[in-house]
Amino acid sequence: MSQRPQSAEESSVGIVETQSVRLFDQDNPLVLASGAVVPEVDVAYETYGTLDETGSNAIFICHALTGDAHAAGRHRSEDHRPGWWDTMIGPGKPIDTDRFFVIADNLIGGCQGTTGPASTNPATGRPYGLDFPLLQIADFVTVHRALLDHLGVRRLLSVIGGSMGGMQALQWALSYPEQVGSAVIIAASSRLNAQNIAFSAVARESIMRDPGFAGGRYLETGTSPDTGLSIARMMAHITYQSGQGMDQKFGRRYQFGEDATRGFGVDFAVESYLDYQGRIFLSRFDALSYLYLTRVMDYFDPFAEEDAAQALAEAGSPCLVLSFDSDWRFDTTHSRAIVRALEQQRVPVSFREIRSPWGHDSFLLTIEDYHATVAAFLRRVSVAAAQGRRDRGGVR
Amino acid sequence: MSQRPQSAEESSVGIVETQSVRLFDQDNPLVLASGAVVPEVDVAYETYGTLDETGSNAIFICHALTGDAHAAGRHRSEDHRPGWWDTMIGPGKPIDTDRFFVIADNLIGGCQGTTGPASTNPATGRPYGLDFPLLQIADFVTVHRALLDHLGVRRLLSVIGGSMGGMQALQWALSYPEQVGSAVIIAASSRLNAQNIAFSAVARESIMRDPGFAGGRYLETGTSPDTGLSIARMMAHITYQSGQGMDQKFGRRYQFGEDATRGFGVDFAVESYLDYQGRIFLSRFDALSYLYLTRVMDYFDPFAEEDAAQALAEAGSPCLVLSFDSDWRFDTTHSRAIVRALEQQRVPVSFREIRSPWGHDSFLLTIEDYHATVAAFLRRVSVAAAQGRRDRGGVR
Repeated sequence: MSQRPQSAEESSVGIVETQSVRLFDQDNPLVLASGAVVPEVDVAYETYGTLDETGSNAIFICHALTGDAHAAGRHRSEDHRPGWWDTMIGPGKPIDTDRFFVIADNLIGGCQGTTGPASTNPATGRPYGLDFPLLQIADFVTVHRALLDHLGVRRLLSVIGGSMGGMQALQWALSYPEQVGSAVIIAASSRLNAQNIAFSAVARESIMRDPGFAGGRYLETGTSPDTGLSIARMMAHITYQSGQGMDQKFGRRYQFGEDATRGFGVDFAVESYLDYQGRIFLSRFDALSYLYLTRVMDYFDPFAEEDAAQALAEAGSPCLVLSFDSDWRFDTTHSRAIVRALEQQRVPVSFREIRSPWGHDSFLLTIEDYHATVAAFLRRVSVAAAQGRRDRGGVR
Repeated sequence: MSQRPQSAEESSVGIVETQSVRLFDQDNPLVLASGAVVPEVDVAYETYGTLDETGSNAIFICHALTGDAHAAGRHRSEDHRPGWWDTMIGPGKPIDTDRFFVIADNLIGGCQGTTGPASTNPATGRPYGLDFPLLQIADFVTVHRALLDHLGVRRLLSVIGGSMGGMQALQWALSYPEQVGSAVIIAASSRLNAQNIAFSAVARESIMRDPGFAGGRYLETGTSPDTGLSIARMMAHITYQSGQGMDQKFGRRYQFGEDATRGFGVDFAVESYLDYQGRIFLSRFDALSYLYLTRVMDYFDPFAEEDAAQALAEAGSPCLVLSFDSDWRFDTTHSRAIVRALEQQRVPVSFREIRSPWGHDSFLLTIEDYHATVAAFLRRVSVAAAQGRRDRGGVR
């Protein structure tokens, strides 16, 4: 990290552009882990920083449920908000773009430039809707890897993600440890519990029971399940924050002055916040993607196979597992379970529970101990990788 | 409590009937705390046990959000399920109907026999809908007191309730301590936090945004906000249980055999449970009542006035405050806040955090330490009341 305080501009990757590439097509279709086939896959991605001569400084960013390829910087100088992980990625930041080549993409099944259920099904000329095949975390990894091929990157210094992004980092490290120099798994889970599944189930029911959903054909009927998607998002926002954090931010404050207006409309500040979050979400997210991407997580269970971590242990790629003490959506027991499973097969794993009042959302925020831990880990694996290259060079 | 194990039949109040009485009418309308007037109020209620000669053994049961007057026993011998608090009320049970005269009613604003927003507005001949006035916990107490007058009961040995029922018990004790010999306040809150308010806000939005809600006029349009109400109920059910309890009950078990069916329908057992809860709720609850009764809680803040507990302290009526360690809807900090507020004004208050894995729902369940604590408290206040009567008799 930088020695001196930086201005927002100095620590930003600046103006960036989302790229698009067709990674799979009729001649080379995407075969999913289930065996289902997606004939054409376009992928949106962004990169920051420069790949070094040895191709050894690449870091892959995996996004969570509602993220996208725009992880850092701004598309236009007048953009109010930067990419979703701009706190983490940039010159002098923990994922330091002065030192690392950073790649971020939008997930298959998503709705922000990568092929998903709202895309056109080449077989019918109509949107896939619910004909889009169910996905697994492993499929995300397959597409990420195809993007790496396209970019000419053979190996990653690290793969990093929070929440569902952490699941991808874990899966990638388990399945292709020779490609993954290290993994940072933040506020994630290797096995959702009943409550986790329950929250997503209610969210999906809210969307699918909305008359505007039209059996997933809403893009053709011209309707939209706005109510269902808004309710899902509002509910999710409660689970992304801690009770303590919500009390700090909103408490029992009224939105319109010192007194209650008393009615069923927005009155408390927390109601105004949720209403706003529910509304703005509609402009950037697709209801079908919400179904597909949440359902992926429910079935994720990479340690169901006993020797899942054996190859990773042999590769010796270190993992960093982080949780936040006030996160109750994926609480620390989830992270500990990952650590235990990795340790049992002697994968080198570091674990830290970070103190933060901000719940699950913490992984998106600037929390000193969190950022310092990620920065230190990346510095360590970066130094170790350089040392490894020198050692191998010396032998040759 | 009974010395020997009892059969379900022996410990039941048996066959009971819900009574109905008009407690307020055009000549004697209900004036709410807000000043608004409800011209006619019918109240559904049940009683169990017998009022003793001195009229000193009456216990009032206040129900929670979705409860009703049918607290114990069965309406017909073939009923599958008894009243909602049959675990607590009956011969030899903590609220022992061999010793106490027990009264339970349905709340104003409710939908199970007592006047509420789905009732006919005498001024228009149409259902009230959203023209029904907003309620406060104090209004529930006003109606409970009118029922006591009707029954010829002047004073209560105790008033008892869980969750929103505990709010009523607290309010009653604070406002009319001379009428309340003691109060049992279980898994309640005197001041909802932002997260509590948020969950209810999303539930209400789910109902009000359902096209079937028709601005609250669904009883006239022949539509119904079934989707919105089901989603609200499903979400609520997650918050009534602990994560640990849900894992014990459901875990990641599949509903239809050992393997996943993989799709967006019900697959995990917890999804089947939520789906069922959402559906059966529609047959017994009204969407407007859900709005009114949840909103009451948001505004409840009885200790906002500094000397709120002064009269109660002077009356010296003891209070028992109970919480459950796995309840995160109204966690123990809520109960501790009540205890602190009462203690500050020297109200005699006992507090116990009960160990239970079942979350907020625990107050409805048979948990040995919980039941023993309630039974012991009622025995104590009952003995003390009898002693007080003897002392006063001796003086006369």
